[in-house]
Amino acid sequence: MPSLTPDAPHRLSVFLQEQSAQRGFNRVVVGLSGGLDSAVVALLCHRVFKQNCHALIMPALTSSPQSQDHALLLCERFNISFSLAPIQAYHQLFNQDHPQASLTRQGNFCARMRMICLYDHSLTHQALVVGTSNKSERMLGYGTIFGDLACAINPIGDLFKTQVYELARMLDVPLEILEKKPSADFYVGQSDEADLGFSYVQIDPLLFEISQRWAHTKQIDCALLVQLGYDPLLVKKIVGRVQQNAFKLEPPLICKLS
Amino acid sequence: MPSLTPDAPHRLSVFLQEQSAQRGFNRVVVGLSGGLDSAVVALLCHRVFKQNCHALIMPALTSSPQSQDHALLLCERFNISFSLAPIQAYHQLFNQDHPQASLTRQGNFCARMRMICLYDHSLTHQALVVGTSNKSERMLGYGTIFGDLACAINPIGDLFKTQVYELARMLDVPLEILEKKPSADFYVGQSDEADLGFSYVQIDPLLFEISQRWAHTKQIDCALLVQLGYDPLLVKKIVGRVQQNAFKLEPPLICKLS
Repeated sequence: MPSLTPDAPHRLSVFLQEQSAQRGFNRVVVGLSGGLDSAVVALLCHRVFKQNCHALIMPALTSSPQSQDHALLLCERFNISFSLAPIQAYHQLFNQDHPQASLTRQGNFCARMRMICLYDHSLTHQALVVGTSNKSERMLGYGTIFGDLACAINPIGDLFKTQVYELARMLDVPLEILEKKPSADFYVGQSDEADLGFSYVQIDPLLFEISQRWAHTKQIDCALLVQLGYDPLLVKKIVGRVQQNAFKLEPPLICKLS
Repeated sequence: MPSLTPDAPHRLSVFLQEQSAQRGFNRVVVGLSGGLDSAVVALLCHRVFKQNCHALIMPALTSSPQSQDHALLLCERFNISFSLAPIQAYHQLFNQDHPQASLTRQGNFCARMRMICLYDHSLTHQALVVGTSNKSERMLGYGTIFGDLACAINPIGDLFKTQVYELARMLDVPLEILEKKPSADFYVGQSDEADLGFSYVQIDPLLFEISQRWAHTKQIDCALLVQLGYDPLLVKKIVGRVQQNAFKLEPPLICKLS
């Protein structure tokens, strides 16, 4: 997997500038969780749009308080315009309606509630919603369809998590954010890598091979990946996951009669 | 614009059967508003999936009580499995948070809350979410992105509203539903045709011409449409609307560095 070139922040900024202008927007809004990916996207947007970049911080009942602290730290250090828009009351209502709801169901609910807040802000402030999902998450389906995967444009959606780390270092993301364990923050102590059963360092090269060789996930050839030196069990697990979750990136299928 | 052939219900049923099986589902869920489009989709799904088709009826604070009556009427007449899942408490919370929110903002909120309920049901019941937006609405952008436009598959997304009427007659949709004015039901008395400023009968042929001739909305040639006999002012209005709203049907744009 190639390292990022030093001009990556510049090229991603050009993308943000051009694509927002093309859509008629000179303002953007980003959901800021306190994690690495949204910190990187907020910093890229802030470079381009200055005070026309706004961050929404939207803690749920089960979010780690540390996450909010990190989101605030980033905004204060870089003077990023932000507002706090807690979704706790909605989360509570969902839990009352569904007292047995698993943490996954709650996490999906919260991811989609945040999408609602971002798109409501988008309408009221004429601000384009910029997405924050990286390619590792997108390929593994480690995200909520119509939730955190929903956005108009996404500058880091083609970067693997390990590449997002490189970018974060280039952008001077605070060490507090850079050095903590990746987490979807559905609940305190959640860890991406524990959920997934492998580390990003371990699987990003495999995901890279898959993305380079196969445009359609149905055709992935596991035997070839094993020949390249990847562990057969890991290959089976990852390929299964990529195939099962491909639907999250596909638009609705419309029946054509004619 | 061509009329539907008599085998349309059969072909749409085959689509539902094949596409759900391909995705590993033998159950579906449909959001039933009490309006024409979702009634048609629920009836198509019920033909194929029988008791494995479930309808969710999700009234908001501002929904017309008549809409719920019509949804219940349909379920009772055709023995469609359903549940009532009001979103009024969430709607109330949104209005408390945003006391100045316009009816459009409230409508978007409610459309997205219904998406959340459908996708939560999808996860807990292993039921595929079947969409109900027609082509006229989709082209005009008369729908909420990541709200009612969100689904896995949609049998009527390539049918213009006037064609959905034909289909509804083939499927014996109750007259109460067939004969009332089309409404997004964001509030009592809302009318699609009053909102849009034209009737579907008036504009569906124009939308058909546009969809047949131009794959990319940016290239639509207004002069050619006027030559075909359409009113210049109507052409300008509709083409502008189609172009402005095309983003609602496009997947997020991901920056490619390599």
